[in-house]
Amino acid sequence: MRYAEVSKAERIRIYDVARVAGVSVATASKALNDTGRMTEATRMRVKQTAAALGFRPNAMARALTRQRSFTVGLLTNDTYGRFTLPVMAGINEALVDQGVSVFLCGIEDDATLARTHVDAMLDKQVDGIIATGKRIDRRLPVDLSNLPVPVVYAFTQGPEDAVTLVSDDDQGARAAISHLLALGRRRLVHVTGPESFASAQNRAKAFRDLAGEGAPILHGDWSEAWGHAAVARLWAEAGVFDAVFCGNDQIARGVVDALRERGLVVPRDVAVIGFDNWEIVSAATRPPLTTIDMNLKELGREAGRLILELAEGKTVEPGVRTLPCRLVMRQSCGGATGAVRAEGEALQEV
Amino acid sequence: MRYAEVSKAERIRIYDVARVAGVSVATASKALNDTGRMTEATRMRVKQTAAALGFRPNAMARALTRQRSFTVGLLTNDTYGRFTLPVMAGINEALVDQGVSVFLCGIEDDATLARTHVDAMLDKQVDGIIATGKRIDRRLPVDLSNLPVPVVYAFTQGPEDAVTLVSDDDQGARAAISHLLALGRRRLVHVTGPESFASAQNRAKAFRDLAGEGAPILHGDWSEAWGHAAVARLWAEAGVFDAVFCGNDQIARGVVDALRERGLVVPRDVAVIGFDNWEIVSAATRPPLTTIDMNLKELGREAGRLILELAEGKTVEPGVRTLPCRLVMRQSCGGATGAVRAEGEALQEV
Repeated sequence: MRYAEVSKAERIRIYDVARVAGVSVATASKALNDTGRMTEATRMRVKQTAAALGFRPNAMARALTRQRSFTVGLLTNDTYGRFTLPVMAGINEALVDQGVSVFLCGIEDDATLARTHVDAMLDKQVDGIIATGKRIDRRLPVDLSNLPVPVVYAFTQGPEDAVTLVSDDDQGARAAISHLLALGRRRLVHVTGPESFASAQNRAKAFRDLAGEGAPILHGDWSEAWGHAAVARLWAEAGVFDAVFCGNDQIARGVVDALRERGLVVPRDVAVIGFDNWEIVSAATRPPLTTIDMNLKELGREAGRLILELAEGKTVEPGVRTLPCRLVMRQSCGGATGAVRAEGEALQEV
Repeated sequence: MRYAEVSKAERIRIYDVARVAGVSVATASKALNDTGRMTEATRMRVKQTAAALGFRPNAMARALTRQRSFTVGLLTNDTYGRFTLPVMAGINEALVDQGVSVFLCGIEDDATLARTHVDAMLDKQVDGIIATGKRIDRRLPVDLSNLPVPVVYAFTQGPEDAVTLVSDDDQGARAAISHLLALGRRRLVHVTGPESFASAQNRAKAFRDLAGEGAPILHGDWSEAWGHAAVARLWAEAGVFDAVFCGNDQIARGVVDALRERGLVVPRDVAVIGFDNWEIVSAATRPPLTTIDMNLKELGREAGRLILELAEGKTVEPGVRTLPCRLVMRQSCGGATGAVRAEGEALQEV
């Protein structure tokens, strides 16, 4: 019994001293180390607290070497999903570089679970929380607006006065459509996901602006099967088109396969461009897809950078920050070698 | 300044009281609540500690409701990979159900990073560590064998005296091959990944046992492109086969597409079975793939269950536990409606 108590007492850390003394870990370290600037009263209070708790110098020596280390909570309603994974990878990279650990909590759209996890995070005294989700137009099922720690929202909708990071759907769509136009394509079709998604709306609006009022927009689901069905519909309507801007890579893969099975050559007859750059789909398509990458890993890195700034007490301007997407050139639009088709080249009738 | 100090002081938790008093959280709760069995000296010490630290009863009330909560460290060298994701999802499920939080650390095959993270986990006083990786025949780049907390290995190689969980490649392969044989297929081919992978070796050995010495085994990489190339090779050699057992779903998708493009109908002419049940591939293949699911989420759940048992001081027999795979029937082998082909049905020549 005595031994167990001693062993527990040995686990007193500089974090405990700092908390009990009401100062930051950095201040506690400096106070005990007789460095840094603070009032003598503060320095004395820290030293007395350390003595009262039985804090040991060798434990302090260890803590001193990593006084910048802390923990950030990562709250996600899409723990193992395709959009949040690169976001989380980026967050991890940004934090691990700074010696910060990530405390991961999956809430799976469950409000009760979300509150439990947020309480657990606060109990563990995380220095900040990053909230991430599956859709930029959906909020997490928990209110994080009055927490004692800073919060950054990444690829999910945050409150108006929050720091929120989303990818720039409009700019990404414009990059895709401009690429098709620059390659000389003039009869564009947009095959995309459900209109209920903000990202589908944003991309369709960009398409309408650049491709013209008459250019067809077909909404369906986000699947390969819809890519096949959309081509079948265009085919039945004897539509004329030389390029398809697809709402995601899965649709694009379906479109490419359906065109090939009708004897059309991609990109010679029809250029096809995707969205997401989900490699398992985009790289395996024949030919491999030219597509738009939302730079989600970079978005995660930025979220990590911002939460560290907030945790350090720096000021970060609130509001929605849209981060740019980038064009990834493979072979489904041609032009990968830098050659741009001459304008006015013959269109294919289908 | 005063306000900030008060606000920090408010964060004193029952965990702090317990640690400073040298008792468990449960004992601290009971002492403050005047319940439970302990010496009066212990009860007094806890109460005095709580008073000295400024611990507030309402904070205690919250903590009491979750005195069973603790944290488990999850160490992975494949933070966002396809095999570890379902494993991690399963671990999360098992632990969240028990009110346990997961502290995630990605080490990306970096030994220094791994040691840093293990130190961080121990500093945060995790009650156990689950180690997970990308391959069952590779060890993580860090020695976890002499830690003060229990360790469970899931989908990675552990030391001999450890508790290790892997999926049963042999049983999974036998389930796939037996399914083809039960459907009346007799000319089987195995198209799989590199021989350097234990999983490729295990599956090939099962194939050799069940399909016979003469049945061809083609090793390549784990890609769709290799599925296409393998069919091209079989075609050039005028091989006769009515079923292909593929080492993963990506190879199977390539095989199915290549067969269709040569005018063969899957499954009528050739049955194709995959491995992994990676839905984005298996469900999108035309026809959708019958395949083997390694039950990785279940493996993760079992890892979570075992680490909790170990953390509670229960005895868990060390050694490697192989968990069974299961057959997932879709359409690429036929027989999905329960109808089994008659034996001896005509073979297709290609």
